Amino acid sequence: MFVVKIGGSKGINLDYVLEDLAHQTEPLVLVHGASDELNQISTQLGKPPRMVTSPSGYTSRYTDRETLDIFAMVYCGKLNMRIVEKLQQLGVNAVGLSGVDGRLLEGKRKSSVRIIENGRKMILRDDFTGKIERANVNLLNILLNNGYLPVISPPAISYEGEAINVDGDRAAAVIANALGADRMLILSNTPGFLKDVDDEASLIPKLDREGIAESIDIYAQDRMKKKLLGAREALDGGVREVILADGRIPGSITAGLSGKGTVIKR
Amino acid sequence: MFVVKIGGSKGINLDYVLEDLAHQTEPLVLVHGASDELNQISTQLGKPPRMVTSPSGYTSRYTDRETLDIFAMVYCGKLNMRIVEKLQQLGVNAVGLSGVDGRLLEGKRKSSVRIIENGRKMILRDDFTGKIERANVNLLNILLNNGYLPVISPPAISYEGEAINVDGDRAAAVIANALGADRMLILSNTPGFLKDVDDEASLIPKLDREGIAESIDIYAQDRMKKKLLGAREALDGGVREVILADGRIPGSITAGLSGKGTVIKR
Repeated sequence: MFVVKIGGSKGINLDYVLEDLAHQTEPLVLVHGASDELNQISTQLGKPPRMVTSPSGYTSRYTDRETLDIFAMVYCGKLNMRIVEKLQQLGVNAVGLSGVDGRLLEGKRKSSVRIIENGRKMILRDDFTGKIERANVNLLNILLNNGYLPVISPPAISYEGEAINVDGDRAAAVIANALGADRMLILSNTPGFLKDVDDEASLIPKLDREGIAESIDIYAQDRMKKKLLGAREALDGGVREVILADGRIPGSITAGLSGKGTVIKR
Repeated sequence: MFVVKIGGSKGINLDYVLEDLAHQTEPLVLVHGASDELNQISTQLGKPPRMVTSPSGYTSRYTDRETLDIFAMVYCGKLNMRIVEKLQQLGVNAVGLSGVDGRLLEGKRKSSVRIIENGRKMILRDDFTGKIERANVNLLNILLNNGYLPVISPPAISYEGEAINVDGDRAAAVIANALGADRMLILSNTPGFLKDVDDEASLIPKLDREGIAESIDIYAQDRMKKKLLGAREALDGGVREVILADGRIPGSITAGLSGKGTVIKR
Protein backbone atom coordinates (compact mmCIF):
# COMPACT_ATOMS: atom_id res chain seq x y z
CA MET A 1 0.00 0.00 0.00
CA PHE A 2 1.33 3.42 -0.89
CA VAL A 3 0.15 7.02 -0.98
CA VAL A 4 0.72 9.32 -3.96
CA LYS A 5 0.58 13.07 -3.45
CA ILE A 6 0.28 15.17 -6.60
CA GLY A 7 1.27 18.78 -6.07
CA GLY A 8 -0.87 21.65 -7.27
CA SER A 9 1.88 23.65 -8.96
CA LYS A 10 2.21 24.49 -12.61
CA GLY A 11 4.13 22.03 -14.74
CA ILE A 12 2.92 18.74 -13.32
CA ASN A 13 1.49 16.59 -16.10
CA LEU A 14 -1.71 15.20 -14.66
CA ASP A 15 -2.38 12.99 -17.68
CA TYR A 16 1.02 11.30 -17.39
CA VAL A 17 0.57 10.76 -13.66
CA LEU A 18 -2.92 9.31 -13.98
CA GLU A 19 -2.05 7.09 -16.96
CA ASP A 20 0.83 5.67 -14.96
CA LEU A 21 -1.36 5.35 -11.90
CA ALA A 22 -3.83 3.21 -13.86
CA HIS A 23 -1.02 0.67 -14.43
CA GLN A 24 -0.15 0.19 -10.77
CA THR A 25 -1.09 -3.12 -9.22
CA GLU A 26 -0.42 -2.38 -5.53
CA PRO A 27 -3.30 -0.71 -3.63
CA LEU A 28 -2.89 3.04 -3.35
CA VAL A 29 -4.57 6.26 -2.31
CA LEU A 30 -4.21 9.53 -4.18
CA VAL A 31 -3.97 12.95 -2.52
CA HIS A 32 -3.80 16.12 -4.60
CA GLY A 33 -3.36 19.86 -4.38
CA ALA A 34 -4.57 22.63 -6.68
CA SER A 35 -2.73 25.75 -5.54
CA ASP A 36 -1.86 27.15 -8.95
CA GLU A 37 -5.42 26.78 -10.23
CA LEU A 38 -6.73 28.27 -6.98
CA ASN A 39 -4.55 31.35 -7.48
CA GLN A 40 -5.94 31.81 -10.97
CA ILE A 41 -9.59 31.35 -10.14
CA SER A 42 -9.56 33.35 -6.93
CA THR A 43 -7.97 36.20 -8.88
CA GLN A 44 -10.64 35.87 -11.58
CA LEU A 45 -13.28 36.08 -8.85
CA GLY A 46 -11.80 39.32 -7.54
CA LYS A 47 -10.22 37.69 -4.49
CA PRO A 48 -6.51 37.39 -5.33
CA PRO A 49 -4.45 35.15 -3.06
CA ARG A 50 -2.96 36.71 0.05
CA MET A 51 0.07 34.76 1.17
CA VAL A 52 1.18 35.46 4.73
CA THR A 53 4.45 34.63 6.49
CA SER A 54 4.68 33.35 10.05
CA PRO A 55 7.39 34.60 12.45
CA SER A 56 9.22 31.27 11.93
CA GLY A 57 9.30 31.86 8.18
CA TYR A 58 6.53 29.64 6.80
CA THR A 59 4.17 31.10 4.26
CA SER A 60 0.54 30.12 4.01
CA ARG A 61 -2.61 31.27 2.26
CA TYR A 62 -4.81 33.61 4.27
CA THR A 63 -8.14 31.81 4.10
CA ASP A 64 -11.20 33.75 5.14
CA ARG A 65 -14.59 32.15 4.57
CA GLU A 66 -14.88 33.51 1.04
CA THR A 67 -11.44 32.14 0.14
CA LEU A 68 -12.39 28.82 1.73
CA ASP A 69 -15.44 28.59 -0.55
CA ILE A 70 -13.26 29.26 -3.60
CA PHE A 71 -10.72 26.77 -2.23
CA ALA A 72 -13.42 24.09 -2.04
CA MET A 73 -14.65 24.95 -5.53
CA VAL A 74 -11.22 24.53 -7.07
CA TYR A 75 -9.87 21.61 -5.02
CA CYS A 76 -13.02 19.50 -4.55
CA GLY A 77 -15.00 20.70 -7.55
CA LYS A 78 -12.75 21.35 -10.49
CA LEU A 79 -9.57 19.39 -9.81
CA ASN A 80 -10.93 16.47 -7.84
CA MET A 81 -13.75 15.87 -10.29
CA ARG A 82 -11.37 16.14 -13.25
CA ILE A 83 -8.99 13.57 -11.72
CA VAL A 84 -11.82 11.17 -10.88
CA GLU A 85 -13.27 11.59 -14.39
CA LYS A 86 -9.92 10.92 -16.05
CA LEU A 87 -9.35 7.85 -13.87
CA GLN A 88 -12.81 6.54 -14.75
CA GLN A 89 -11.89 6.94 -18.43
CA LEU A 90 -8.79 4.86 -17.71
CA GLY A 91 -10.89 2.13 -16.10
CA VAL A 92 -10.02 2.97 -12.49
CA ASN A 93 -13.06 3.12 -10.21
CA ALA A 94 -12.12 6.33 -8.44
CA VAL A 95 -14.11 8.13 -5.73
CA GLY A 96 -13.33 11.73 -4.80
CA LEU A 97 -13.34 12.88 -1.19
CA SER A 98 -12.43 15.98 0.73
CA GLY A 99 -11.25 15.87 4.31
CA VAL A 100 -14.72 17.02 5.38
CA ASP A 101 -16.37 13.86 3.99
CA GLY A 102 -16.80 11.38 6.80
CA ARG A 103 -14.49 13.64 8.87
CA LEU A 104 -11.67 12.03 6.92
CA LEU A 105 -9.05 14.65 7.82
CA GLU A 106 -9.37 16.19 11.27
CA GLY A 107 -7.35 18.98 12.73
CA LYS A 108 -7.21 22.09 14.81
CA ARG A 109 -8.27 25.41 13.41
CA LYS A 110 -5.89 28.27 14.10
CA SER A 111 -8.44 30.99 14.58
CA SER A 112 -5.75 33.57 15.14
CA VAL A 113 -2.60 33.48 13.07
CA ARG A 114 0.55 35.46 13.83
CA ILE A 115 2.16 36.89 10.78
CA ILE A 116 4.96 39.26 9.82
CA GLU A 117 3.98 41.85 7.24
CA ASN A 118 6.30 44.65 6.14
CA GLY A 119 8.51 43.80 9.11
CA ARG A 120 5.68 44.18 11.63
CA LYS A 121 3.99 41.50 13.69
CA MET A 122 0.24 41.21 13.21
CA ILE A 123 -2.51 38.83 14.21
CA LEU A 124 -5.05 37.70 11.64
CA ARG A 125 -8.42 36.49 12.83
CA ASP A 126 -11.23 34.80 10.87
CA ASP A 127 -8.68 32.59 9.22
CA PHE A 128 -9.86 29.09 8.32
CA THR A 129 -6.49 27.41 8.25
CA GLY A 130 -5.33 24.72 10.58
CA LYS A 131 -3.05 21.85 11.26
CA ILE A 132 -4.09 18.35 10.36
CA GLU A 133 -3.78 15.99 13.31
CA ARG A 134 -5.46 12.76 12.33
CA ALA A 135 -7.07 10.79 9.53
CA ASN A 136 -10.22 8.75 10.16
CA VAL A 137 -9.41 6.14 7.58
CA ASN A 138 -12.39 3.88 8.23
CA LEU A 139 -14.02 5.36 5.13
CA LEU A 140 -10.86 4.79 3.05
CA ASN A 141 -10.55 1.19 4.19
CA ILE A 142 -14.16 0.51 3.27
CA LEU A 143 -13.63 1.99 -0.19
CA LEU A 144 -10.33 0.18 -0.76
CA ASN A 145 -11.81 -3.14 0.38
CA ASN A 146 -14.59 -2.68 -2.17
CA GLY A 147 -12.32 -1.94 -5.11
CA TYR A 148 -12.58 1.86 -5.17
CA LEU A 149 -9.59 4.18 -5.42
CA PRO A 150 -9.93 7.18 -3.09
CA VAL A 151 -8.88 10.56 -4.52
CA ILE A 152 -8.50 13.01 -1.65
CA SER A 153 -7.99 16.74 -1.35
CA PRO A 154 -8.09 19.34 1.41
CA PRO A 155 -9.93 21.05 3.09
CA ALA A 156 -9.88 19.15 6.36
CA ILE A 157 -12.44 19.59 9.15
CA SER A 158 -11.86 21.14 12.58
CA TYR A 159 -12.99 19.43 15.77
CA GLU A 160 -15.82 21.99 15.79
CA GLY A 161 -16.89 20.92 12.31
CA GLU A 162 -15.56 23.83 10.26
CA ALA A 163 -13.82 23.23 6.97
CA ILE A 164 -10.17 24.30 7.26
CA ASN A 165 -7.35 24.78 4.79
CA VAL A 166 -4.50 22.41 5.63
CA ASP A 167 -1.24 21.57 3.95
CA GLY A 168 -1.65 18.78 1.40
CA ASP A 169 1.76 17.16 1.91
CA ARG A 170 1.21 16.86 5.63
CA ALA A 171 -2.31 15.58 5.00
CA ALA A 172 -0.83 12.87 2.77
CA ALA A 173 1.62 11.95 5.54
CA VAL A 174 -1.13 11.63 8.14
CA ILE A 175 -3.17 9.47 5.75
CA ALA A 176 -0.17 7.27 4.95
CA ASN A 177 0.46 6.72 8.64
CA ALA A 178 -3.15 5.99 9.49
CA LEU A 179 -3.41 3.48 6.64
CA GLY A 180 -0.12 1.82 7.57
CA ALA A 181 1.25 2.56 4.11
CA ASP A 182 4.88 1.66 3.64
CA ARG A 183 5.73 4.22 0.98
CA MET A 184 4.73 7.76 0.13
CA LEU A 185 5.44 9.42 -3.19
CA ILE A 186 5.35 13.22 -3.49
CA LEU A 187 5.19 14.34 -7.12
CA SER A 188 5.97 17.93 -7.98
CA ASN A 189 7.39 20.02 -10.79
CA THR A 190 11.02 19.26 -10.01
CA PRO A 191 13.11 16.06 -10.23
CA GLY A 192 13.16 15.92 -6.41
CA PHE A 193 14.89 17.93 -3.69
CA LEU A 194 17.47 20.22 -5.29
CA LYS A 195 20.43 21.81 -3.51
CA ASP A 196 20.12 24.69 -5.93
CA VAL A 197 16.52 25.25 -6.90
CA ASP A 198 17.63 26.60 -10.29
CA ASP A 199 19.81 23.63 -11.15
CA GLU A 200 18.09 20.33 -11.76
CA ALA A 201 21.48 18.59 -11.76
CA SER A 202 21.85 19.46 -8.07
CA LEU A 203 19.38 16.74 -7.08
CA ILE A 204 19.98 15.23 -3.66
CA PRO A 205 19.34 11.53 -4.36
CA LYS A 206 19.24 10.34 -0.74
CA LEU A 207 18.41 11.80 2.61
CA ASP A 208 17.77 10.36 6.05
CA ARG A 209 15.48 11.60 8.78
CA GLU A 210 18.30 13.50 10.48
CA GLY A 211 19.33 15.14 7.22
CA ILE A 212 15.91 16.74 6.85
CA ALA A 213 16.18 19.44 9.50
CA GLU A 214 19.61 20.44 8.31
CA SER A 215 18.52 20.53 4.68
CA ILE A 216 15.43 22.56 5.51
CA ASP A 217 17.61 25.25 7.04
CA ILE A 218 20.23 25.32 4.33
CA TYR A 219 18.54 24.66 1.03
CA ALA A 220 14.81 24.40 1.08
CA GLN A 221 12.50 26.94 -0.51
CA ASP A 222 9.22 27.36 1.21
CA ARG A 223 7.21 24.82 -0.75
CA MET A 224 9.95 22.24 -0.40
CA LYS A 225 10.10 22.87 3.35
CA LYS A 226 6.56 21.61 3.70
CA LYS A 227 7.30 18.56 1.60
CA LEU A 228 10.26 17.74 3.82
CA LEU A 229 8.17 18.24 6.94
CA GLY A 230 5.51 16.00 5.44
CA ALA A 231 8.20 13.42 4.68
CA ARG A 232 9.51 13.54 8.24
CA GLU A 233 6.03 13.15 9.69
CA ALA A 234 5.41 10.17 7.45
CA LEU A 235 8.69 8.50 8.49
CA ASP A 236 8.01 9.19 12.17
CA GLY A 237 4.60 7.59 11.82
CA GLY A 238 5.83 4.37 10.30
CA VAL A 239 6.26 4.94 6.57
CA ARG A 240 9.42 3.19 5.41
CA GLU A 241 10.31 5.42 2.50
CA VAL A 242 9.28 8.79 1.12
CA ILE A 243 10.22 9.64 -2.44
CA LEU A 244 10.15 13.17 -3.84
CA ALA A 245 9.80 12.62 -7.57
CA ASP A 246 9.17 14.34 -10.86
CA GLY A 247 5.51 14.78 -11.77
CA ARG A 248 6.22 16.21 -15.21
CA ILE A 249 7.43 13.06 -16.97
CA PRO A 250 5.70 9.98 -18.43
CA GLY A 251 5.77 7.05 -16.00
CA SER A 252 6.28 9.39 -13.08
CA ILE A 253 4.90 7.05 -10.41
CA THR A 254 6.80 4.01 -11.65
CA ALA A 255 10.01 6.06 -11.85
CA GLY A 256 9.53 7.43 -8.34
CA LEU A 257 8.82 4.01 -6.87
CA SER A 258 12.00 2.70 -8.48
CA GLY A 259 13.99 5.36 -6.65
CA LYS A 260 14.27 8.12 -9.22
CA GLY A 261 14.12 11.37 -7.28
CA THR A 262 15.04 12.06 -3.68
CA VAL A 263 14.63 8.94 -1.55
CA ILE A 264 14.19 9.65 2.15
CA LYS A 265 14.48 6.87 4.72
CA ARG A 266 14.74 6.74 8.48
CA MET B 1 -35.61 4.49 3.14
CA PHE B 2 -36.33 7.77 1.38
CA VAL B 3 -34.59 10.21 -0.93
CA VAL B 4 -34.62 13.98 -0.36
CA LYS B 5 -33.92 16.28 -3.29
CA ILE B 6 -33.10 19.89 -2.39
CA GLY B 7 -33.53 22.28 -5.30
CA GLY B 8 -30.88 24.79 -6.25
CA SER B 9 -33.18 27.80 -6.54
CA LYS B 10 -33.16 30.95 -4.47
CA GLY B 11 -35.31 30.93 -1.36
CA ILE B 12 -34.72 27.43 -0.09
CA ASN B 13 -33.47 27.56 3.50
CA LEU B 14 -30.62 25.08 3.59
CA ASP B 15 -30.12 25.46 7.33
CA TYR B 16 -33.75 24.58 8.05
CA VAL B 17 -33.62 21.59 5.74
CA LEU B 18 -30.40 20.22 7.19
CA GLU B 19 -31.42 20.80 10.81
CA ASP B 20 -34.60 18.86 10.15
CA LEU B 21 -32.68 16.20 8.28
CA ALA B 22 -30.48 15.64 11.31
CA HIS B 23 -33.60 14.64 13.28
CA GLN B 24 -34.76 11.94 10.87
CA THR B 25 -34.45 8.35 12.07
CA GLU B 26 -35.23 6.49 8.84
CA PRO B 27 -32.25 5.95 6.48
CA LEU B 28 -32.08 8.50 3.70
CA VAL B 29 -29.99 9.83 0.85
CA LEU B 30 -29.72 13.51 -0.03
CA VAL B 31 -29.52 14.86 -3.59
CA HIS B 32 -29.05 18.57 -4.24
CA GLY B 33 -28.89 21.17 -6.97
CA ALA B 34 -27.12 24.52 -7.11
CA SER B 35 -28.53 26.26 -10.18
CA ASP B 36 -28.94 29.72 -8.70
CA GLU B 37 -25.41 29.77 -7.29
CA LEU B 38 -24.08 28.42 -10.60
CA ASN B 39 -25.72 31.30 -12.46
CA GLN B 40 -24.07 33.78 -10.14
CA ILE B 41 -20.59 32.32 -10.20
CA SER B 42 -20.51 31.57 -13.92
CA THR B 43 -21.52 35.19 -14.53
CA GLN B 44 -18.76 36.36 -12.17
CA LEU B 45 -16.29 34.26 -14.15
CA GLY B 46 -17.33 35.91 -17.40
CA LYS B 47 -19.32 32.91 -18.61
CA PRO B 48 -22.98 33.85 -18.02
CA PRO B 49 -25.53 31.02 -18.28
CA ARG B 50 -26.92 30.27 -21.71
CA MET B 51 -30.28 28.57 -21.40
CA VAL B 52 -31.49 26.83 -24.55
CA THR B 53 -34.95 25.54 -25.47
CA SER B 54 -35.61 22.24 -27.21
CA PRO B 55 -38.22 21.91 -29.98
CA SER B 56 -40.50 20.18 -27.44
CA GLY B 57 -40.27 23.15 -25.11
CA TYR B 58 -37.81 22.10 -22.42
CA THR B 59 -35.10 24.50 -21.41
CA SER B 60 -31.65 23.40 -20.34
CA ARG B 61 -28.26 24.91 -19.65
CA TYR B 62 -25.83 24.87 -22.58
CA THR B 63 -22.83 23.18 -20.99
CA ASP B 64 -19.58 23.39 -22.90
CA ARG B 65 -16.46 22.11 -21.16
CA GLU B 66 -15.74 25.43 -19.50
CA THR B 67 -19.28 25.59 -18.13
CA LEU B 68 -18.96 22.00 -16.96
CA ASP B 69 -15.86 22.92 -14.96
CA ILE B 70 -17.71 25.80 -13.32
CA PHE B 71 -20.70 23.49 -12.79
CA ALA B 72 -18.47 21.02 -10.93
CA MET B 73 -16.91 23.82 -8.90
CA VAL B 74 -20.27 25.10 -7.70
CA TYR B 75 -22.17 21.84 -7.28
CA CYS B 76 -19.43 19.51 -6.00
CA GLY B 77 -17.10 22.10 -4.51
CA LYS B 78 -19.03 24.93 -2.95
CA LEU B 79 -22.53 23.55 -2.31
CA ASN B 80 -21.76 19.90 -1.67
CA MET B 81 -18.92 20.71 0.70
CA ARG B 82 -21.04 23.28 2.53
CA ILE B 83 -23.88 20.78 3.01
CA VAL B 84 -21.53 18.05 4.22
CA GLU B 85 -19.81 20.51 6.57
CA LYS B 86 -23.12 21.69 8.03
CA LEU B 87 -24.31 18.09 8.51
CA GLN B 88 -21.05 17.21 10.25
CA GLN B 89 -21.64 20.14 12.60
CA LEU B 90 -25.08 18.66 13.31
CA GLY B 91 -23.54 15.28 14.13
CA VAL B 92 -24.48 13.55 10.85
CA ASN B 93 -21.60 11.65 9.29
CA ALA B 94 -22.16 12.89 5.74
CA VAL B 95 -20.07 12.01 2.68
CA GLY B 96 -20.33 14.08 -0.51
CA LEU B 97 -20.36 12.44 -3.93
CA SER B 98 -20.89 13.49 -7.51
CA GLY B 99 -22.30 11.15 -10.11
CA VAL B 100 -18.77 10.71 -11.47
CA ASP B 101 -17.55 9.14 -8.20
CA GLY B 102 -17.68 5.37 -8.52
CA ARG B 103 -19.73 5.95 -11.73
CA LEU B 104 -22.65 6.56 -9.37
CA LEU B 105 -24.87 8.23 -11.98
CA GLU B 106 -24.52 6.93 -15.51
CA GLY B 107 -26.18 8.26 -18.62
CA LYS B 108 -25.94 9.09 -22.25
CA ARG B 109 -24.27 12.24 -23.43
CA LYS B 110 -26.22 14.19 -26.04
CA SER B 111 -23.31 15.42 -28.08
CA SER B 112 -25.60 17.30 -30.42
CA VAL B 113 -28.59 19.14 -29.03
CA ARG B 114 -31.44 20.51 -31.13
CA ILE B 115 -32.60 23.90 -29.99
CA ILE B 116 -34.92 26.66 -31.09
CA GLU B 117 -33.40 30.12 -30.91
CA ASN B 118 -35.19 33.23 -32.16
CA GLY B 119 -37.68 30.94 -33.88
CA ARG B 120 -34.98 29.06 -35.81
CA LYS B 121 -33.87 25.46 -35.37
CA MET B 122 -30.19 25.00 -34.58
CA ILE B 123 -27.91 22.19 -33.53
CA LEU B 124 -25.43 22.73 -30.71
CA ARG B 125 -22.37 20.52 -30.53
CA ASP B 126 -19.73 20.22 -27.79
CA ASP B 127 -22.49 20.17 -25.23
CA PHE B 128 -21.83 18.10 -22.13
CA THR B 129 -25.42 17.47 -21.13
CA GLY B 130 -27.12 14.14 -21.07
CA LYS B 131 -29.88 11.98 -19.76
CA ILE B 132 -29.33 9.92 -16.66
CA GLU B 133 -30.21 6.28 -17.22
CA ARG B 134 -29.00 4.36 -14.21
CA ALA B 135 -27.54 4.63 -10.72
CA ASN B 136 -24.80 2.24 -9.59
CA VAL B 137 -25.85 2.25 -5.97
CA ASN B 138 -23.31 -0.28 -4.73
CA LEU B 139 -21.28 2.65 -3.38
CA LEU B 140 -24.35 4.14 -1.67
CA ASN B 141 -25.29 0.84 -0.07
CA ILE B 142 -21.78 0.41 1.29
CA LEU B 143 -21.85 3.92 2.77
CA LEU B 144 -25.35 3.52 4.22
CA ASN B 145 -24.48 0.15 5.75
CA ASN B 146 -21.51 1.77 7.47
CA GLY B 147 -23.45 4.67 8.96
CA TYR B 148 -22.60 7.38 6.43
CA LEU B 149 -25.16 9.67 4.86
CA PRO B 150 -24.52 10.19 1.12
CA VAL B 151 -24.92 13.75 -0.20
CA ILE B 152 -25.09 13.60 -3.99
CA SER B 153 -25.03 16.14 -6.78
CA PRO B 154 -24.69 16.11 -10.57
CA PRO B 155 -22.69 15.89 -12.83
CA ALA B 156 -23.26 12.31 -13.93
CA ILE B 157 -20.84 10.33 -16.10
CA SER B 158 -21.38 9.19 -19.68
CA TYR B 159 -20.73 5.60 -20.78
CA GLU B 160 -17.54 6.98 -22.36
CA GLY B 161 -16.44 8.43 -19.02
CA GLU B 162 -17.17 12.11 -19.60
CA ALA B 163 -18.78 14.20 -16.90
CA ILE B 164 -22.22 15.34 -18.06
CA ASN B 165 -24.76 17.81 -16.77
CA VAL B 166 -28.01 15.99 -15.96
CA ASP B 167 -31.25 17.05 -14.36
CA GLY B 168 -31.12 16.72 -10.57
CA ASP B 169 -34.76 15.75 -10.06
CA ARG B 170 -34.51 12.90 -12.52
CA ALA B 171 -31.19 11.87 -10.96
CA ALA B 172 -32.94 11.70 -7.59
CA ALA B 173 -35.68 9.53 -9.13
CA VAL B 174 -33.18 7.09 -10.64
CA ILE B 175 -31.35 6.86 -7.30
CA ALA B 176 -34.62 6.30 -5.41
CA ASN B 177 -35.55 3.48 -7.77
CA ALA B 178 -32.15 1.83 -7.66
CA LEU B 179 -32.12 1.94 -3.86
CA GLY B 180 -35.68 0.64 -3.60
CA ALA B 181 -36.69 3.75 -1.66
CA ASP B 182 -40.40 3.96 -0.95
CA ARG B 183 -40.66 7.74 -0.82
CA MET B 184 -39.07 10.70 -2.54
CA LEU B 185 -39.31 14.26 -1.31
CA ILE B 186 -38.59 17.17 -3.66
CA LEU B 187 -38.03 20.40 -1.75
CA SER B 188 -38.18 23.69 -3.62
CA ASN B 189 -39.06 27.33 -3.08
CA THR B 190 -42.83 26.81 -3.35
CA PRO B 191 -45.37 25.00 -1.16
CA GLY B 192 -45.68 22.31 -3.87
CA PHE B 193 -47.22 22.17 -7.31
CA LEU B 194 -49.32 25.29 -7.86
CA LYS B 195 -52.08 25.69 -10.45
CA ASP B 196 -51.18 29.34 -10.62
CA VAL B 197 -47.48 29.83 -10.07
CA ASP B 198 -48.15 33.28 -8.58
CA ASP B 199 -50.73 32.10 -6.07
CA GLU B 200 -49.51 29.89 -3.27
CA ALA B 201 -53.14 29.17 -2.31
CA SER B 202 -53.59 27.33 -5.61
CA LEU B 203 -51.63 24.33 -4.32
CA ILE B 204 -52.68 21.01 -5.82
CA PRO B 205 -52.59 18.73 -2.76
CA LYS B 206 -52.91 15.41 -4.58
CA LEU B 207 -52.06 14.03 -7.97
CA ASP B 208 -51.87 10.56 -9.46
CA ARG B 209 -49.59 9.22 -12.15
CA GLU B 210 -52.16 9.88 -14.86
CA GLY B 211 -52.73 13.41 -13.68
CA ILE B 212 -49.09 14.30 -14.25
CA ALA B 213 -49.07 14.47 -18.06
CA GLU B 214 -52.23 16.52 -18.09
CA SER B 215 -50.93 18.90 -15.43
CA ILE B 216 -47.61 19.31 -17.21
CA ASP B 217 -49.41 20.56 -20.31
CA ILE B 218 -51.83 22.84 -18.55
CA TYR B 219 -50.05 24.34 -15.58
CA ALA B 220 -46.43 23.54 -15.20
CA GLN B 221 -43.67 26.07 -15.65
CA ASP B 222 -40.45 24.68 -16.96
CA ARG B 223 -38.75 23.91 -13.67
CA MET B 224 -41.89 22.26 -12.34
CA LYS B 225 -42.17 20.15 -15.51
CA LYS B 226 -38.89 18.46 -14.68
CA LYS B 227 -39.99 17.83 -11.12
CA LEU B 228 -43.16 16.19 -12.37
CA LEU B 229 -41.21 14.10 -14.87
CA GLY B 230 -38.86 13.09 -12.07
CA ALA B 231 -41.88 12.21 -9.94
CA ARG B 232 -43.37 10.06 -12.70
CA GLU B 233 -40.08 8.25 -13.27
CA ALA B 234 -39.80 7.56 -9.57
CA LEU B 235 -43.37 6.16 -9.39
CA ASP B 236 -42.81 4.04 -12.49
CA GLY B 237 -39.68 2.62 -10.94
CA GLY B 238 -41.32 1.52 -7.71
CA VAL B 239 -41.40 4.54 -5.41
CA ARG B 240 -44.72 4.56 -3.58
CA GLU B 241 -45.08 8.28 -3.02
CA VAL B 242 -43.44 11.47 -4.26
CA ILE B 243 -44.03 14.66 -2.30
CA LEU B 244 -43.31 18.13 -3.67
CA ALA B 245 -42.83 20.21 -0.55
CA ASP B 246 -41.72 23.59 0.72
CA GLY B 247 -37.98 23.95 1.33
CA ARG B 248 -38.26 27.43 2.82
CA ILE B 249 -39.81 26.55 6.18
CA PRO B 250 -38.51 25.07 9.43
CA GLY B 251 -39.17 21.34 9.66
CA SER B 252 -39.51 21.09 5.89
CA ILE B 253 -38.68 17.40 5.62
CA THR B 254 -40.96 16.36 8.47
CA ALA B 255 -43.79 18.46 7.03
CA GLY B 256 -43.32 16.98 3.57
CA LEU B 257 -43.24 13.43 4.87
CA SER B 258 -46.48 14.08 6.75
CA GLY B 259 -48.14 15.05 3.46
CA LYS B 260 -47.83 18.82 3.45
CA GLY B 261 -47.30 19.81 -0.18
CA THR B 262 -48.32 17.98 -3.34
CA VAL B 263 -48.53 14.24 -2.74
CA ILE B 264 -48.21 12.15 -5.90
CA LYS B 265 -49.11 8.47 -5.90
CA ARG B 266 -49.59 5.85 -8.57
